[in-house]
Amino acid sequence: MKVVVVGAGLAGLTAARRLVALGHEVVVLEARSRVGGRTEGGVLSDGTPVELGGQWLGEGHSRMYALCEELGLETFRTWNDEGELLLELRGKRSRLKPHKGAVPRVSPFALADLAQGMARFERLARRVDLDRPWLTPGAERLDGQTWESWIRRNLRTAAGRAYFRVACEAVWAAEAADVSLLHALFYTRSNADLETLLAVDEGAQQDRVVGGSVRVSERLAEELGDRVVLGSPVRRVAHRPDGVGVETRAGTTYDGDAVVVTLPPALAGRLDYDPVLPSWRDQLTQRLPAGSVVKTYAAYPTPFWREDGLNGQAASDEGPVKITFDNSPPSGTPGVLMGFIEGAEARRWVRATPDERRAAVVGCFVRYFGPRAADPVEYLERDWNAEEFTRGCYGAHFTPGVWTTYGEALREPVGRIHWAGADYARDWCGYMEGAVRSGESVAESIAAELGRKPA
Amino acid sequence: MKVVVVGAGLAGLTAARRLVALGHEVVVLEARSRVGGRTEGGVLSDGTPVELGGQWLGEGHSRMYALCEELGLETFRTWNDEGELLLELRGKRSRLKPHKGAVPRVSPFALADLAQGMARFERLARRVDLDRPWLTPGAERLDGQTWESWIRRNLRTAAGRAYFRVACEAVWAAEAADVSLLHALFYTRSNADLETLLAVDEGAQQDRVVGGSVRVSERLAEELGDRVVLGSPVRRVAHRPDGVGVETRAGTTYDGDAVVVTLPPALAGRLDYDPVLPSWRDQLTQRLPAGSVVKTYAAYPTPFWREDGLNGQAASDEGPVKITFDNSPPSGTPGVLMGFIEGAEARRWVRATPDERRAAVVGCFVRYFGPRAADPVEYLERDWNAEEFTRGCYGAHFTPGVWTTYGEALREPVGRIHWAGADYARDWCGYMEGAVRSGESVAESIAAELGRKPA
Repeated sequence: MKVVVVGAGLAGLTAARRLVALGHEVVVLEARSRVGGRTEGGVLSDGTPVELGGQWLGEGHSRMYALCEELGLETFRTWNDEGELLLELRGKRSRLKPHKGAVPRVSPFALADLAQGMARFERLARRVDLDRPWLTPGAERLDGQTWESWIRRNLRTAAGRAYFRVACEAVWAAEAADVSLLHALFYTRSNADLETLLAVDEGAQQDRVVGGSVRVSERLAEELGDRVVLGSPVRRVAHRPDGVGVETRAGTTYDGDAVVVTLPPALAGRLDYDPVLPSWRDQLTQRLPAGSVVKTYAAYPTPFWREDGLNGQAASDEGPVKITFDNSPPSGTPGVLMGFIEGAEARRWVRATPDERRAAVVGCFVRYFGPRAADPVEYLERDWNAEEFTRGCYGAHFTPGVWTTYGEALREPVGRIHWAGADYARDWCGYMEGAVRSGESVAESIAAELGRKPA
Repeated sequence: MKVVVVGAGLAGLTAARRLVALGHEVVVLEARSRVGGRTEGGVLSDGTPVELGGQWLGEGHSRMYALCEELGLETFRTWNDEGELLLELRGKRSRLKPHKGAVPRVSPFALADLAQGMARFERLARRVDLDRPWLTPGAERLDGQTWESWIRRNLRTAAGRAYFRVACEAVWAAEAADVSLLHALFYTRSNADLETLLAVDEGAQQDRVVGGSVRVSERLAEELGDRVVLGSPVRRVAHRPDGVGVETRAGTTYDGDAVVVTLPPALAGRLDYDPVLPSWRDQLTQRLPAGSVVKTYAAYPTPFWREDGLNGQAASDEGPVKITFDNSPPSGTPGVLMGFIEGAEARRWVRATPDERRAAVVGCFVRYFGPRAADPVEYLERDWNAEEFTRGCYGAHFTPGVWTTYGEALREPVGRIHWAGADYARDWCGYMEGAVRSGESVAESIAAELGRKPA
């Protein structure tokens, strides 16, 4: 029996690997000339590897840690503990010791407001039915509003509201106005809680892969060998009761007993299907847009901010870069600042010229870390919105009304067509961990299903 | 100079006609084996024409009336005046004389609530900047919430809320939870006001075209002759500084100086563009999903409801059919009831079997018009969600956050690629009138633009 996998990101590669382990024939068709999908390796001119896409493993990401070990890869801690992080809200700056529950230096009113808002949000999130979010108590009401509406109603201070909005941008590269409250709650529960989502130590940003996260995909692809076919964008998926035929843009058709489409939902919806997909699947993918993000890097001779007792992390409600990290290699040389332009900032700044954008980004680094940030030896960026085969990061988000009226269609196969990817994951949705779990789980479903069918 | 038009709906055909009138060469590529797009002719087994798609002209639709006259088509009044309409809210039924400002028989509290809600909504709508909705005062706040959030906050009674929700379903075939409040306001202002949108006489549902609305497209296509190429779904649009090449799925390429893509935004976003579209255009079309609707017909020997003093119109907050019309031909024989399954009801009922759906629809007709509705001589339906080349009706709606962060990209050409369709219209957005205005206006822009360029 043979399975065609569309996409050589983490979901596609782990699905393929598991299928091979279960004794099936597999071909993985990848549009790009590289594997890794939303993880991608880049390199500074001195040879230092940088990660242009997804980079973190953390709390609860057990499959990813195990996979790294199986593949002979090592992880290291995100630079965090030695130095304080900067938090800027409404023009007021705090320096915080980085640990869960760190308390920003804002007014007692704002602090109480924020604490109460967090507690309320976490209480709501704990109620979410992860398997079937549309059956969560009060689902229609929660899904009938944006997260922004909830923030306006539940947070009373400007600082409290700003904190939640920046959190939303940091998690989805989308605005609180874009996202259904039910989705915000689902995603939070899927990733333990809001603090875990936002934290470094004991959080979703705890560790990195030595050499870059793309190494995981590269090692998986090496194992799979010539089963992985690069440079082969898929255009058409024919599916019949007795099999599938997956056709590339170049006109080559790969036949199989089943297909796993691991493209982001919006792109999965753009393929030609024959016969066409049921309307509920098509209308679902019309409603799962990707976030908006440009990942930026500035390299310096040394991580000079460390000398000032800072750990290179900033979180601010003023852009275009509102979130930064010290992304220096384990050796500490060169010093590498990484900054995200997310959500509405990204939508605005991708229309600027590269020079304007670089100046604005470096301007933010100077605002956070002082004049020594003004002259990076190198600047690098990746606009994920412009990537033909991704079209936005970090992932898909559910707009209001979608979970409650289309949720059932998300993970449901259509005949011999199966879906996988970080956006489909029940647990650790949106993360590399979710991609791997989704890939492995779809492989097992298919194997079980094919095992029951006559060859 | 030559223009390639993608789509032979009203926007594409009127764009082509205007370009021809201005002396340009045109080819119109249509995916289907028919013209008309979201207008479509059907026929009962006795030969009575019925409209499977858009059907109404009304107040302010001056271009459509003029076009009908130019094309030698006649219009007739929607059956409305002779008889009362039914309004059911929260299980209570009123019979109303159909005119603007008709007062439903609900409690004085509900009535006051509804009147105040309507007035508030209209006041907000009048503030919208139709050319640039994102510059409307308070745009971010209006766009940061769903229409449903506004309804919950501004309407106090169950009947008042139900009325607004049904109105939303009737206008977009979408739920109030799906739609940005700013979009609801923009669309309402674009179509004069809420009462005009919902009314028959002096409203958007006032008139119909004798023989069916699709006749307009058919006559336009006759005029254009062999410039219209049917059965030619477009797959790829290559665009260069010196021209465009539009390739069909079958592999034929049509070269031109410009292209007008008149597909619904979500489908326009699914074509392959070379080079790829700017990210802001791509991310916009990821965020403009189509509504969800099944249009249903039941035919009877006579329009028996007229004998009971009813005009065949019902509006209810209980589905699956919440809106009905008397769609009998001008002769009055046979009697034809038309019912819409819209929004969440459509999403649910398209998953039922045809028999289950028919039984549920006829059950609604019985609930509204009595036991004589139980045995139609014929039943017919069109599930617009399932149409490969439409993928949902009535049109695209803006989800929260989209007007304010992507609005500028909506009507902006990308090099030699232009966009047109009912969903792009400033005035009478979403209606046949909007499609015609958009088509004619894009033709004039292109002609002006091409006139300035060396051939």
